[in-house]
Amino acid sequence: MTPTNKQVLLASRPDGWVKESDFRIAETPTPTPSEGQVLLKTLYLSLDPYMRGAMNEKRAYGTPLNLGDVMVGEGIGEVVESKNPRFKIGDTVAAYTGWQQYAVSDARNLRPVDTKLLPASVYLGVVGMPGVTAWYGLLKIGEPKPGETVVVSAASGAVGSVAGQIAKIKDCRVIGIAGGKQKCDYVVNDLGFDTCIDYRSSDWYDALAAATPRGIDVYFENVGGPLLDAVLARSNAFARIPLCGMIAEYNATDRYGIRNLISAVGNRIKLQGFIISDHFAIWPEALAQLAQWVREKKIKYRETVVEGLENAPSAFIGLFKGENFGKQIVKVA
Amino acid sequence: MTPTNKQVLLASRPDGWVKESDFRIAETPTPTPSEGQVLLKTLYLSLDPYMRGAMNEKRAYGTPLNLGDVMVGEGIGEVVESKNPRFKIGDTVAAYTGWQQYAVSDARNLRPVDTKLLPASVYLGVVGMPGVTAWYGLLKIGEPKPGETVVVSAASGAVGSVAGQIAKIKDCRVIGIAGGKQKCDYVVNDLGFDTCIDYRSSDWYDALAAATPRGIDVYFENVGGPLLDAVLARSNAFARIPLCGMIAEYNATDRYGIRNLISAVGNRIKLQGFIISDHFAIWPEALAQLAQWVREKKIKYRETVVEGLENAPSAFIGLFKGENFGKQIVKVA
Repeated sequence: MTPTNKQVLLASRPDGWVKESDFRIAETPTPTPSEGQVLLKTLYLSLDPYMRGAMNEKRAYGTPLNLGDVMVGEGIGEVVESKNPRFKIGDTVAAYTGWQQYAVSDARNLRPVDTKLLPASVYLGVVGMPGVTAWYGLLKIGEPKPGETVVVSAASGAVGSVAGQIAKIKDCRVIGIAGGKQKCDYVVNDLGFDTCIDYRSSDWYDALAAATPRGIDVYFENVGGPLLDAVLARSNAFARIPLCGMIAEYNATDRYGIRNLISAVGNRIKLQGFIISDHFAIWPEALAQLAQWVREKKIKYRETVVEGLENAPSAFIGLFKGENFGKQIVKVA
Repeated sequence: MTPTNKQVLLASRPDGWVKESDFRIAETPTPTPSEGQVLLKTLYLSLDPYMRGAMNEKRAYGTPLNLGDVMVGEGIGEVVESKNPRFKIGDTVAAYTGWQQYAVSDARNLRPVDTKLLPASVYLGVVGMPGVTAWYGLLKIGEPKPGETVVVSAASGAVGSVAGQIAKIKDCRVIGIAGGKQKCDYVVNDLGFDTCIDYRSSDWYDALAAATPRGIDVYFENVGGPLLDAVLARSNAFARIPLCGMIAEYNATDRYGIRNLISAVGNRIKLQGFIISDHFAIWPEALAQLAQWVREKKIKYRETVVEGLENAPSAFIGLFKGENFGKQIVKVA
């Protein structure tokens, strides 16, 4: 008997803030794999800010979703049916499952995960796309040198938390920026950043100045808006700013205007956007190193897990309000 | 008998737009060179937008001027007295003369110029700092590939005109942006750009879109403000934006806010500021190539020459209003 496949579909394109009615829950028959394919049962689904872009009619990269499409996303799946000799029933893999209980995969982009080494969900976080994003952006664009000052926004998040901890491993002075005292305490006490600035406090601008007496050499940018302006005003000559995301702007209809970009001329600053799916060649090296650092407790992580696929939309909306704490995961089965 | 040395001094720091009263003309005795030094008589003085930064109390790079200091700048000088065996009376050199009729130099940063090959003033323009700036920014940061679309702002200016012509030599499609029909006609008809957009026309935004049907791959930035926003909105994936200057902002007290920087994330755009004095190692190669292109008529140039050092302040102010046409030179003697 074929089980039903619950899915979350794109119901309408958000105009500004994404809302629950932009999604629709559907139930369809579970698909059957063809020769060479496998059927995956989704155990965990990853929710990431980049998915917001796929909901728009135009998208800077990748293909935009059509209305009625299953929402995109990476998950951890268990092979429940296999017509591919490389995978057997019971194997656990990371895959582009989408927001659904069952997904057929042509088995080309499956990444085997070892749940004996680390819990499955970690392969969606530190030892997955967010971790590799932090690794590449910080090390390959940020190029931090020992003793330099590194600032990381969204510092308690899936990407920022890893970027900052790698910067500490590289002997930098690391300043986090996060929303609220609880997250800031976590960033300093648990993750080991040197200090953390609460961007919700009224004196965050002065606090950033006080925390960076020798200026800023690397800014790992996840947020955009006034934070970027403040960092540009305090950046040192030859600073590097990997542009990983600008979550403050993803739902904006009237975007903040950056006034201090002129600092990039006189200070010879490099700002560079990147998307980790352009750089699959470095994934194996990055994943191996990240897994080792996690096992050695040099990189710690935290997850916010919601239960049930039907709760994915509200958890996704929460991402943009900072309601998650660390990596946002949906436990699907 | 020692001649009098006329100088232009910084009289006050501009608050916003630079004005004539920020300068003061002074006359002092001509200095005498010590052992190892030479005395230069300034023939031509170069006026460049970067000098505006030196007038401020704080400066992103280099040492700010004190009130009463001689204005900084490069000139073409004739050796009129020499206590250095490497230079003899009558030699012509490019040097940091400052805005004055006579300057003593320790002979370390003198660049001999060959006035038989090219007119002396050209060594302040195409075959000087502005030309090398264009060469480095376009080729080393912009990295244009044949067939790509390159946009150059301040396209009739000393730097922009060279950047665009080098892009044509590299088989790119080149769109200039300049102020007024006369400059745009020059950019297309004389310099050979494919098209030029008059930023003073009301439809410049739409004209830029029409001129870049395949998007923008490289933007050589001299201006800043709304132009940069418009270019970001039309930039292709992996576009490169050398940030050479933002002349629109140098005199601004309330700067324009850039709203489309978020495009740099999704499109993986690199924006990079640079200052040519960081890169003296490439000057010989660049200068040799630029001189060859000028002799082969592959790079053309135009100068606006004012006579008399006392007219330097008004000509300098005119730079920021776009009153010059091509390289702004002061004929001092």
